[in-house]
Amino acid sequence: MYPNWIIQRAYLTPLRKALTYKEQSWTFLELNDLSSKRARQLVGLGIKRGDRIAIMGPSKPELVITMYACLHLQCEMVMLNRRLSQDELGYQLADSEAVAVLIADEDVNKLPANTAHYLFSTIEEVEEGAFDIGKEWPLDQTTTIMYTSGTTGFPKGVRQTVGNHQASATASVLNIGLQADDVWLCAVPLFHISGFSILVRSLLYGNQVYLYDHFDVEAITHHIMNGEVTHMSVVAVTLERILHTLEQHKAKASSRFKLMLAGGGPVPADYLSRAHTLNLAVAQTYGMTETSSQTATLASEDAIRKIGSAGKPLFFNQIKIVEPNAQGEGEICIRGPHVTPGYIGRFAQKSATRDGWLHTGDIGYLDEDGYLFVIDRRADLIISGGENIYPAEIENVLLMHPAVKEAGVCGADDKQWGQVPVAFVVLNEQVSVEQLQAFCQQRLAKYKLPKEIIITNSLPRNGADKLLRRKLLQ
Amino acid sequence: MYPNWIIQRAYLTPLRKALTYKEQSWTFLELNDLSSKRARQLVGLGIKRGDRIAIMGPSKPELVITMYACLHLQCEMVMLNRRLSQDELGYQLADSEAVAVLIADEDVNKLPANTAHYLFSTIEEVEEGAFDIGKEWPLDQTTTIMYTSGTTGFPKGVRQTVGNHQASATASVLNIGLQADDVWLCAVPLFHISGFSILVRSLLYGNQVYLYDHFDVEAITHHIMNGEVTHMSVVAVTLERILHTLEQHKAKASSRFKLMLAGGGPVPADYLSRAHTLNLAVAQTYGMTETSSQTATLASEDAIRKIGSAGKPLFFNQIKIVEPNAQGEGEICIRGPHVTPGYIGRFAQKSATRDGWLHTGDIGYLDEDGYLFVIDRRADLIISGGENIYPAEIENVLLMHPAVKEAGVCGADDKQWGQVPVAFVVLNEQVSVEQLQAFCQQRLAKYKLPKEIIITNSLPRNGADKLLRRKLLQ
Repeated sequence: MYPNWIIQRAYLTPLRKALTYKEQSWTFLELNDLSSKRARQLVGLGIKRGDRIAIMGPSKPELVITMYACLHLQCEMVMLNRRLSQDELGYQLADSEAVAVLIADEDVNKLPANTAHYLFSTIEEVEEGAFDIGKEWPLDQTTTIMYTSGTTGFPKGVRQTVGNHQASATASVLNIGLQADDVWLCAVPLFHISGFSILVRSLLYGNQVYLYDHFDVEAITHHIMNGEVTHMSVVAVTLERILHTLEQHKAKASSRFKLMLAGGGPVPADYLSRAHTLNLAVAQTYGMTETSSQTATLASEDAIRKIGSAGKPLFFNQIKIVEPNAQGEGEICIRGPHVTPGYIGRFAQKSATRDGWLHTGDIGYLDEDGYLFVIDRRADLIISGGENIYPAEIENVLLMHPAVKEAGVCGADDKQWGQVPVAFVVLNEQVSVEQLQAFCQQRLAKYKLPKEIIITNSLPRNGADKLLRRKLLQ
Repeated sequence: MYPNWIIQRAYLTPLRKALTYKEQSWTFLELNDLSSKRARQLVGLGIKRGDRIAIMGPSKPELVITMYACLHLQCEMVMLNRRLSQDELGYQLADSEAVAVLIADEDVNKLPANTAHYLFSTIEEVEEGAFDIGKEWPLDQTTTIMYTSGTTGFPKGVRQTVGNHQASATASVLNIGLQADDVWLCAVPLFHISGFSILVRSLLYGNQVYLYDHFDVEAITHHIMNGEVTHMSVVAVTLERILHTLEQHKAKASSRFKLMLAGGGPVPADYLSRAHTLNLAVAQTYGMTETSSQTATLASEDAIRKIGSAGKPLFFNQIKIVEPNAQGEGEICIRGPHVTPGYIGRFAQKSATRDGWLHTGDIGYLDEDGYLFVIDRRADLIISGGENIYPAEIENVLLMHPAVKEAGVCGADDKQWGQVPVAFVVLNEQVSVEQLQAFCQQRLAKYKLPKEIIITNSLPRNGADKLLRRKLLQ
């Protein structure tokens, strides 16, 4: 049995700042008091220990308090993604059989019609029920359930346990270190593992979270320049916006700022060298919902030397490549205490692991020093005339062109070749498709050249700003 | 399953310094290579995976390499205390049923006569056997066995598992933080949990250990002044010597030096205020063999405000006081993943915990802020220079002498050692104090020898004729 994180942290460092949002801050003691009260209010609504509860709301303190209340109740929280359609939410609510939906007032219209729910504003007014908050949690207790799109098109509800989250947070600290006054800026959604893992680390480490409900690039960049925050989680596209803003201000990151943890896919080499110039340490990481965040992370001192790598596994984790080809490329498999025990609902019977190993469906290799290189999602792999084409490779070339701000590549059906790559680009400045084609021709094998390059205003991304290649053609 | 610590660390940070002794240093890669070879040499001697092996030697690199070799072999290491008498060692070897004894050449004469053993110098010459070093370890694998004297006078062999050590190291880092270039000075014995836990932390954290085989106060104080080391484990008596040396040099600790972890009993308030003046952060800690090191630690910023306290539990640990009196004082009980699963040998059937709680036999209370105060390290325990001395053990030896009718031992305050044992005896027949001293010398480690033996007519006892040790000095 392990201590209830919120109670333990409030006991150990009650007066340390836990959360800052806009101009207001809360200590760990205050968050414990508020979330304990909220827990008893949920009991007042009839919610019981261990119930499965769906939650949706923007990244604001009331969401944090509601999540912590559910932790106190040892509920299984189904983390609803605010960017989903009503149909998609309907699927998750039905699949998870959540007994209640807790929702921020401003998000209520996102729910499918006639979905029973409790508004945050309503819950705040409910009379507290009697409840003895558990001071200890078992390691295998499911804490969060996050849906991840399966290759089948049916999203799978992934269990993340107390043990998964703890293992993830402790392994991370053995890699990147820890000081009591570290401050993690959170501008990634709390319903994603990238955001929720920041809350878990805050509770285990006793660190402050600086919370944003949207990506305010000016304000965030100023925190980084001033050293008011020390860590931040980004994806390539948000990193680029910060780099761009620093460059516009002709400013550098403060020496107090320690690390950008960059997940959700590879970071273009060009971004890394710009970050280096701006004194901004970037650690590329490889993680997923099934591993409660990072499995491997590249130390920032290796960012340039091992450019493109996701680094080495965190201390308690293991990585192997199965069925490698002659170049050593194969499916990435993961083992460790951070790996999910499995799924709920439709996929409850499907085992997440084989002999303890999670088969990720991602393709990669380990170089001679044991650094992981993730080549691509196997689901996104384009097979053209028998040749494997990794979309990321073409995207990286396009992103090297100064006029290209964002790029996404997917496969389109083709009579002759089976599939051919098609590229979608968002531009910074005027450029012709012909110029881009010529640029690619200099850098890519002929079979990898995009058959078409389409200029567009935005690329389809999920809640974590991760590119959704499968939606490009739509 | 968790990664083999040595292999994983050598994989993650092969070229970082792992160990420094005198003028020489070894990287994690080098220690892995050396200990892997040593493991295969042990196999060459016939040692098999999982065997129980006793080890003794001074804190030198060859001991570290031999211990790591045993870790590779997943052996249960019985850590022999170099200060024990031959009789005491004989008891531990018999009780543990160790299949082999590995011993530093310079320590061979400490063994009981006719003990089969392998000298370190012999092992180094053995041809390597074939062995597939395990890359993964189960959490419940016993790694080390350390003997701790029981109240009965019969030492108990305490199991410390992979999970115990990992939990201890990770909980500690959540408390005191971590940076990649931290260096821990180890001048406490490696056969004690205070020393061995430094090796575990080094492997998990990727930090360097600066090893000393004796307490060279001048050299150590210079490291602290120069900031060549950042952490150190001390007991009150060694802390005082460092303070004294700093004062003599009119020097202060370097700002790079971070923390003294002070265990093995309370640190006098006077030392703490002197340390404060000398810019030396001291964190008092409460730990024991059964908890693989720290259970609670007082943050250095609370050292003066909560003087005399051992702090709050580390994040994954819990403390409660059972059967408290009106002042809230009672037996300290501990729960957490760092608590031993139990004992070996004579006490194998004795459960270490009740309902998951370790009953320490120590008396203490939690103040209104939840800080632990340890009143008495078990009712009668004598702590002399950081070593635990149990009165019953000395009494048992005295009672073996035909002239001794009754014996009672208690601790007397001592400037140098904190406490020293003093014995009171009632005689059957004439015997000199010198003869009794000589009798004890044959049977007890030097630090356990009574400083004084006082012949008296009767011992203080309660109504049930139970010896009242605390009343002996009156």
